[in-house]
Amino acid sequence: MSDFIVGVIGPGRSATPREIGDAHELGRLIAEEEWIVLSGGRDTGVTDAVSTGAREIGGLTVGIVPGADRREASAAVDIPIITGMGNARYDIEVLSSDVLIACGMECGPASQIALALEAEKIVIFLNPSKECESFFKVLRPELVRVARSTKEAIEWAREVAASR
Amino acid sequence: MSDFIVGVIGPGRSATPREIGDAHELGRLIAEEEWIVLSGGRDTGVTDAVSTGAREIGGLTVGIVPGADRREASAAVDIPIITGMGNARYDIEVLSSDVLIACGMECGPASQIALALEAEKIVIFLNPSKECESFFKVLRPELVRVARSTKEAIEWAREVAASR
Amino acid sequence: MSDFIVGVIGPGRSATPREIGDAHELGRLIAEEEWIVLSGGRDTGVTDAVSTGAREIGGLTVGIVPGADRREASAAVDIPIITGMGNARYDIEVLSSDVLIACGMECGPASQIALALEAEKIVIFLNPSKECESFFKVLRPELVRVARSTKEAIEWAREVAASR
Amino acid sequence: MSDFIVGVIGPGRSATPREIGDAHELGRLIAEEEWIVLSGGRDTGVTDAVSTGAREIGGLTVGIVPGADRREASAAVDIPIITGMGNARYDIEVLSSDVLIACGMECGPASQIALALEAEKIVIFLNPSKECESFFKVLRPELVRVARSTKEAIEWAREVAASR
Repeated sequence: MSDFIVGVIGPGRSATPREIGDAHELGRLIAEEEWIVLSGGRDTGVTDAVSTGAREIGGLTVGIVPGADRREASAAVDIPIITGMGNARYDIEVLSSDVLIACGMECGPASQIALALEAEKIVIFLNPSKECESFFKVLRPELVRVARSTKEAIEWAREVAASR
Repeated sequence: MSDFIVGVIGPGRSATPREIGDAHELGRLIAEEEWIVLSGGRDTGVTDAVSTGAREIGGLTVGIVPGADRREASAAVDIPIITGMGNARYDIEVLSSDVLIACGMECGPASQIALALEAEKIVIFLNPSKECESFFKVLRPELVRVARSTKEAIEWAREVAASR
Repeated sequence: MSDFIVGVIGPGRSATPREIGDAHELGRLIAEEEWIVLSGGRDTGVTDAVSTGAREIGGLTVGIVPGADRREASAAVDIPIITGMGNARYDIEVLSSDVLIACGMECGPASQIALALEAEKIVIFLNPSKECESFFKVLRPELVRVARSTKEAIEWAREVAASR
Repeated sequence: MSDFIVGVIGPGRSATPREIGDAHELGRLIAEEEWIVLSGGRDTGVTDAVSTGAREIGGLTVGIVPGADRREASAAVDIPIITGMGNARYDIEVLSSDVLIACGMECGPASQIALALEAEKIVIFLNPSKECESFFKVLRPELVRVARSTKEAIEWAREVAASR
């Protein structure tokens, strides 16, 4: 097991079937690399899917949970970090990740991406909308990577892992 | 003194002279309405300018300060809230504000705006870039207001105050 | 209005009538000094009583509120800081106060006192139990003050204000 | 590997040789039970010693780190959670632990213990001072356990694990 931590962020309940599928696939691919998956820890959407995918092939999964109760964590999270601090936990997700992958967009992920760029972390966008890509490229072009497939996202992450 | 709290967000050291000028003017206008100014509390950029403007005409200013030391707060902040939690304080700024005005853009403000939209707060953008306006209008169109002058920003804020 | 901030901590729902009475009296005395009252912001117990006392004679009251909703703040709080982070807010209360007064004991206040001593703040204990006084005097004897009346507590606070 | 998480708390730089030795032994014993060790993540004192002990026999170690930089984590921490929020992280340590063991006393641990009791967690005190034991037993007698050896501490933890 490597100690490289990949934060995966994306919509919760409003995630589309495609985003769920991509997140599940990302979880498997990250675990294959023997990297650790870190997410928002909830039992819905992208967060749940990426942890479930990683678990299927024996990956280690960490979740930074918003509420004060362990039972709200996804069953696929091995190590639930119970923050009790709602969205103030976003900065913990970002600071604890070596690289972030954004799989779908919503207010929560947008906030996390902006925090990640402020903390000088590379953010890999999987199939971003035109508006999303334009906005974050204006903010910090040197930290934004765009991937058109889960495999391409992993390739970008490998580059970050290699440069550590 | 009303208990209506207006959060003003924007760049720190990288703020342009125009953004500094707008923030200073916003501070004066908010204080004239007898509203409370809330900001990130630092002694630079938009944060410092909005507090200084409000102070000039007797307004009350609150700052949510990132570090653990009161001396890093702007001298124009009446009530420095010392968080010691860096950017995790963004959510406190957002939750404590009745409405937010964004005066300039950067990673920090982008994160705060996304948190504000997630918390169902109205965000007033003063002269946003095209990319910024497009991105946040895709996320939560019903909560985004665009102003072309500090006075127009205050008019939008008045509408929020009236609907409380 | 001075910018000296006095944090008052103590039990919530389980506060005794005497603690409520003392907190109310402390609020009045702090406001008479023209200092700012800072508390946990809730609408029960010591927190509510100290804010109500200060309000009665025109004092300014700040509350660091645990939940994400302004409506859970005491009606006697002028400036509710909405943290949404439960007990992680204790450190904000401590760091934002120039001195703390403990009026009654419980787990929450005990945690805040320990944080205050760690941050090198003076803590004034109003009528502490023998066990409480012994414990904190072992931890940081040079920062612990014991008062047998609300007036004596204010005298200790005056000493801190004078030495700023 | 079980998913039972044991939080171990105690002094940092001021830890005595005996506390360091006890923490190291606790780390080994916790890892032997196949439980996860959680600590404050720093590279000194009890925190570093418990992680080092657990690592020696293949245990999994999680650290809730105060600063914003991974490099300040103990080298014996497998999963550093980087909070950037100083002592506000104490509540995360407490909420994420199924049981806590206090190995030595100081302001930080005292704050964590009080938070743990407030969150209804059982706290096992290893060789507490008389003042410490008396104080916390007054606060929440039903949640305080006292151990006279590292082995006895583990027995108390086993009881908690069994009752989950």
